[in-house]
Amino acid sequence: MHTGEKRHEEVKLSVINYDEVNFQEKTINSIEEVFSFRREPSITWLNVDGVHQPEIIEQVGKSFGLHPLVAEDIASTGQRPKMEDFDDYIFVVLRMLMFDEKENETKTEQVSILFGRDFVVSFQERADGDVFDPIRERLRSNKGKIRKMGADYLAYSLIDAIVDNYFVILEKLGETIEDVEDKLVTNPTSETLHKIHDLKREMIFLRKSVWPLREVINKLGRSESELINASTCVYMRDVYDHTIQVMDSVETFRDMLSGMLDIYLSSLSNRMNEVMKVLTVISTIFIPLTFVVGLYGMNFRHMPELEQTWGYPAILILMFAVALLMVVFFRRRKWM
Amino acid sequence: MHTGEKRHEEVKLSVINYDEVNFQEKTINSIEEVFSFRREPSITWLNVDGVHQPEIIEQVGKSFGLHPLVAEDIASTGQRPKMEDFDDYIFVVLRMLMFDEKENETKTEQVSILFGRDFVVSFQERADGDVFDPIRERLRSNKGKIRKMGADYLAYSLIDAIVDNYFVILEKLGETIEDVEDKLVTNPTSETLHKIHDLKREMIFLRKSVWPLREVINKLGRSESELINASTCVYMRDVYDHTIQVMDSVETFRDMLSGMLDIYLSSLSNRMNEVMKVLTVISTIFIPLTFVVGLYGMNFRHMPELEQTWGYPAILILMFAVALLMVVFFRRRKWM
Amino acid sequence: MHTGEKRHEEVKLSVINYDEVNFQEKTINSIEEVFSFRREPSITWLNVDGVHQPEIIEQVGKSFGLHPLVAEDIASTGQRPKMEDFDDYIFVVLRMLMFDEKENETKTEQVSILFGRDFVVSFQERADGDVFDPIRERLRSNKGKIRKMGADYLAYSLIDAIVDNYFVILEKLGETIEDVEDKLVTNPTSETLHKIHDLKREMIFLRKSVWPLREVINKLGRSESELINASTCVYMRDVYDHTIQVMDSVETFRDMLSGMLDIYLSSLSNRMNEVMKVLTVISTIFIPLTFVVGLYGMNFRHMPELEQTWGYPAILILMFAVALLMVVFFRRRKWM
Amino acid sequence: MHTGEKRHEEVKLSVINYDEVNFQEKTINSIEEVFSFRREPSITWLNVDGVHQPEIIEQVGKSFGLHPLVAEDIASTGQRPKMEDFDDYIFVVLRMLMFDEKENETKTEQVSILFGRDFVVSFQERADGDVFDPIRERLRSNKGKIRKMGADYLAYSLIDAIVDNYFVILEKLGETIEDVEDKLVTNPTSETLHKIHDLKREMIFLRKSVWPLREVINKLGRSESELINASTCVYMRDVYDHTIQVMDSVETFRDMLSGMLDIYLSSLSNRMNEVMKVLTVISTIFIPLTFVVGLYGMNFRHMPELEQTWGYPAILILMFAVALLMVVFFRRRKWM
Amino acid sequence: MHTGEKRHEEVKLSVINYDEVNFQEKTINSIEEVFSFRREPSITWLNVDGVHQPEIIEQVGKSFGLHPLVAEDIASTGQRPKMEDFDDYIFVVLRMLMFDEKENETKTEQVSILFGRDFVVSFQERADGDVFDPIRERLRSNKGKIRKMGADYLAYSLIDAIVDNYFVILEKLGETIEDVEDKLVTNPTSETLHKIHDLKREMIFLRKSVWPLREVINKLGRSESELINASTCVYMRDVYDHTIQVMDSVETFRDMLSGMLDIYLSSLSNRMNEVMKVLTVISTIFIPLTFVVGLYGMNFRHMPELEQTWGYPAILILMFAVALLMVVFFRRRKWM
Repeated sequence: MHTGEKRHEEVKLSVINYDEVNFQEKTINSIEEVFSFRREPSITWLNVDGVHQPEIIEQVGKSFGLHPLVAEDIASTGQRPKMEDFDDYIFVVLRMLMFDEKENETKTEQVSILFGRDFVVSFQERADGDVFDPIRERLRSNKGKIRKMGADYLAYSLIDAIVDNYFVILEKLGETIEDVEDKLVTNPTSETLHKIHDLKREMIFLRKSVWPLREVINKLGRSESELINASTCVYMRDVYDHTIQVMDSVETFRDMLSGMLDIYLSSLSNRMNEVMKVLTVISTIFIPLTFVVGLYGMNFRHMPELEQTWGYPAILILMFAVALLMVVFFRRRKWM
Repeated sequence: MHTGEKRHEEVKLSVINYDEVNFQEKTINSIEEVFSFRREPSITWLNVDGVHQPEIIEQVGKSFGLHPLVAEDIASTGQRPKMEDFDDYIFVVLRMLMFDEKENETKTEQVSILFGRDFVVSFQERADGDVFDPIRERLRSNKGKIRKMGADYLAYSLIDAIVDNYFVILEKLGETIEDVEDKLVTNPTSETLHKIHDLKREMIFLRKSVWPLREVINKLGRSESELINASTCVYMRDVYDHTIQVMDSVETFRDMLSGMLDIYLSSLSNRMNEVMKVLTVISTIFIPLTFVVGLYGMNFRHMPELEQTWGYPAILILMFAVALLMVVFFRRRKWM
Repeated sequence: MHTGEKRHEEVKLSVINYDEVNFQEKTINSIEEVFSFRREPSITWLNVDGVHQPEIIEQVGKSFGLHPLVAEDIASTGQRPKMEDFDDYIFVVLRMLMFDEKENETKTEQVSILFGRDFVVSFQERADGDVFDPIRERLRSNKGKIRKMGADYLAYSLIDAIVDNYFVILEKLGETIEDVEDKLVTNPTSETLHKIHDLKREMIFLRKSVWPLREVINKLGRSESELINASTCVYMRDVYDHTIQVMDSVETFRDMLSGMLDIYLSSLSNRMNEVMKVLTVISTIFIPLTFVVGLYGMNFRHMPELEQTWGYPAILILMFAVALLMVVFFRRRKWM
Repeated sequence: MHTGEKRHEEVKLSVINYDEVNFQEKTINSIEEVFSFRREPSITWLNVDGVHQPEIIEQVGKSFGLHPLVAEDIASTGQRPKMEDFDDYIFVVLRMLMFDEKENETKTEQVSILFGRDFVVSFQERADGDVFDPIRERLRSNKGKIRKMGADYLAYSLIDAIVDNYFVILEKLGETIEDVEDKLVTNPTSETLHKIHDLKREMIFLRKSVWPLREVINKLGRSESELINASTCVYMRDVYDHTIQVMDSVETFRDMLSGMLDIYLSSLSNRMNEVMKVLTVISTIFIPLTFVVGLYGMNFRHMPELEQTWGYPAILILMFAVALLMVVFFRRRKWM
Repeated sequence: MHTGEKRHEEVKLSVINYDEVNFQEKTINSIEEVFSFRREPSITWLNVDGVHQPEIIEQVGKSFGLHPLVAEDIASTGQRPKMEDFDDYIFVVLRMLMFDEKENETKTEQVSILFGRDFVVSFQERADGDVFDPIRERLRSNKGKIRKMGADYLAYSLIDAIVDNYFVILEKLGETIEDVEDKLVTNPTSETLHKIHDLKREMIFLRKSVWPLREVINKLGRSESELINASTCVYMRDVYDHTIQVMDSVETFRDMLSGMLDIYLSSLSNRMNEVMKVLTVISTIFIPLTFVVGLYGMNFRHMPELEQTWGYPAILILMFAVALLMVVFFRRRKWM
């Protein structure tokens, strides 16, 4: 059922339980602990790092009364971003972007967020995603109004953290694009072409993650579910604006990359043409001259010019004149 | 009336009759047997393998009280996926994808599904489509909740099986695309071009099958027909999400193939340019030298250089120097 | 007022009058005869072959109480397909496709259909359009349910005949495209290019006829006019499905032709490159050799090699070795 | 405030006052005369030729009680076609096309039409627009039903005249396109390219005028204003159909021009390739032969062939054979 | 929180307080002064030049009771144009275009406008934006009806000033495009290509600013907020028309630039082809001639022609004839 890469680490479960006054944080080993730990009317956030153990997802499903399809969607990690309202809880699938320094590539990871009246459950593929750390910090330190608001606000904060992370990736891509553009002007190589191609490809994948995201967040912002407060809706619409901005940037990058490909191809052909032109000019000057020297290399008995003392210098001067004339002609036509 | 390829095998009719408790499976010879066999209030699934015998489709039509156009649509196998609600039954036309190992090509086959309150009739073009076998198995072994649900759930299961099969085909195509992309980098030949072209063409056909599918399944998911249970609707929307994912992949593949065509063409031209450049450089070095040797091949009586003992070695050194200078010049301009 | 090609033949008027029991068919000379001939409550179908005599269209207009703009639209034959509901009658303009064998080209002709409660009037530009003959035959022989249904069903049958004829044309075009594609692989000539261009152009025109058709037939299928029976609506939606299929095919053909153009251009350039490569290789091998023979053609007095008996064979062997080395080098780099 | 080209002629004001029985036509000097002249319940049509005198537009604005923005829109001649309903009057801005014979270019001019219950005011940029003359003639001669209908019908007639004029321009452009296409086949020059480019550019501008027009006329046809009679709406929808037809033609022309550009480029490259091929073939045949003659031009003392009587004819025959073989080889490979 | 470029100047606060009778203008140092200064029922316009001091924006936020997200949006200057209705006030983000003479580039700046029943607050990134000066002047001199209308009309005036400024930028770009187009015909260089590329890029950014603007102003024009008067709505729709016009121009420029790129590439290739053609023709003429002179440079003992007195002149005439024939042949085929 799990469709992503096989992984062997332990699935990490961590719970945060908070209300305006209290705050508890704990790493647990089995799902049952969540409920022993939970205390009404506080809000519980269960974060699951790793979706490669279906039995854990199943347990979560049973504990929170989830639809069997939800568990399936959490486990199969190639999901398209989507939002589904199951009355008692809202299920959101998003894609988180990460820049893999080793392979110099942008990677995506599926993040599933479930939230009801007093709980939020989040699933990440890997444990190393630290985009949620600032939120944990805000919860711990009771900064801002996050502990005064409901589960919907926590869900919003998680989504906002993911979307804000997109800007980091986009900035990195923007810098790479500018680097490549600089190289395009100074020294275009076939490597530049492959770099443009790779960036175009990354844009295709980015777009695939971002387009449905827009729809998902729009749905959340305009939702009529009782689980989302009117005051949170304003925040959701703000995330929506950010998503549109991300999309705009992706489209702009795509347009820029297309333009760069055109520039690359035409500057390549420009350079080749220049090479060919100079070389051909050289050949063309020497071909008639070679004919002339061949002419006086003929062995006819009666070639009066050959007998004259002035013959050799005359022919040298003639050839020099011809070469000069051709150079002048090429210069005029701007072929040299 | 039948518009597909002419075929001569027998049309195979198989019936499954089930409810939560009972299960019967039988291969029958004529449509009448279905009804003798059927037992209220169980659900009957009639599967017809082969649509090349119009009289059988007509009999099914009469037995289940179908509109004449439905029979026509089942028989003409070039139909576009569609869904029509006839109040008493819902008629769905889909396209199943199969990978033909012999011709190394993706083929499509029309599958028509009819379902009412307590029956499902499915028509396949060929008998070798085994995508429904897992469903038969689940019915036999009473695994999952399939035997507890109605005819609409069975119809959903059939549609889900078809759509899930799309992912298999897409994965195969994705692998082929990656193979071709590797070849593109290491050794692009005109065969690579034809492969890209063939893949692009397959994408055109895939797209033609998938785009209308989306609409069909959306309609099913949002249908207000009494034949589809609210609980089944959730499942239908899940299939819908899968369809969108299939479409996304097809579009991504199309974009990737377009990019690959660009890369192919520019790497081809790159390689050609390189060949031309090296060859032209060689010619250009030797052309002036050939002029020089021609010069001293002239038969003028008075050519003082020719008489000198140092003439020959001097001219050899001169030519070597000229060649060297040209090589240095070409190197500097990065033409070599 | 008539905007098509000028024509001189007589306009042909033919009337069919039928109900479930009776059937009469007659060629008439003036419009008045229609009404003497008509018998309540039967349905009258007046077919007019030729729209180049405005007075006849005007007479029809007066007799059936048509809006002056309708008569204008019938006569000006460059109309875009459209459907207009005038309460008492519905006015439909379609384009019929014909393959002109002489000019090897697809041509279009305007067909206008008017239908009310008990009459259908159809206008064709030319008399040679026999797509309506099967309908006449069905009326004569009382096959199917056409004589049991109303004027709307007759109108549907006419429209269906026109749309079905599109498939015939599309099949012909599909075959031509496959022929051209075969030639593309075996022997691409500039004629192939012109053929692709012509096909692309035909697609532009086909598209122009088919796109609005879709809208027209959709409107008919979803019409709330009292003139169209609910039972006929199902048939209209069936024609609608066919129209979508036609559009799909046109779009697929367009995509295929674009791909073929790319293939043509790149295979052309591929072939040219191959020619250039082989020829340049030959030149490049002989240019250094020509330099060598020129070298020993020089007339310096002191060229010790020339005096040796082994000079000539040695130089021959040397040149052979150089040529061989170059061939090996070119082979390695895959330039030969 | 006036944004068009500066002009110095007098603004020409002409009024037509009509009802079913009466008809008066007059050229006036100041706006006040309109009202002295106007007679209830007849319809008044004020036509203003020239919008470069803001004071006149202001006077019209005051006399007819117009919104200040309307006067502004009339004076600034770069307006996009639009329609605005101000309850008491409807304001329509259109673009009229004219073919400028001198500059061989299509030009556009802004026409503003205002109409209320019993008046129509039209503004043209230049006095030479005679597209309204046929309407004046119909009013004078009381032909058709124009004098029996209201101000909305007159407004419709003006709009219809403008849209019908588009077809004239399109026909001219269509002829030019066909001319260029013929030249493309027989003798493509760089002038042909510039012609295609110019036509493409004209299409861009045409499109800019026509696209918003569609929306404007659709709005008029579906308007719920009391100023537009139900019977006039039918006519408006007819103009709408014409607009769509114009748009279709513009799009078709665009597609055709794109195809022509492709054909131009590939036929150019085809021709160049042919030149290069023949020339290269010639060079390639002579290069080995030149090597051979160079070989026997060497001055080695011991070259046995040179001493033989048969040497010269033998080498001639050999060279002829080599040349022949190469020609045969090139012919086979279809390079010649 | 502030995301734009770091800046160190002081933030400039200026307040204008006006009603039909009174007018006061003042530069203030802290937000509190606004309220001491404000006098009911007049309208207050607070203009803030500089958004790099978050504490000032925060103070404004508190003073006018703004949502925390609004303050955030004002400070982060990469916002997409948007409009949000917060019941008590409307928040609009726009982008102002400026032409940077130094860098010869179009730049954008974020302008945020807030307006309620009796106040308008505008934020600019830089103090040098003088597009609002004419509005200040109109307020001071009580020209037009601006002092008779509400805060919504002032907001409209600010937006209108920004949009009108777009036309100035577009005109500048249009002139640059025409300059480049002229150069394209007379002397296309690689600099022309880079200019086209830069213009295309500017269009991408312009488009990004203008597209969302359209939506924003449409929303304002159709808003049902009580803060916007019905009479102001007409003006808003007028700005909307201008925005559409701006968008049309941007799209037209994009289309023109694409066409120019095509022209550039094909004229470049045209020119290169011409060079290659002439040069190749020259080579091709001399290659056979060089063969001939080589032929008579051979050292065979028995070459009868060499002995004849007429040999040399005969061969000269022959070569001249061959050259002439080739020139004629090339001329006929139009290769020269």
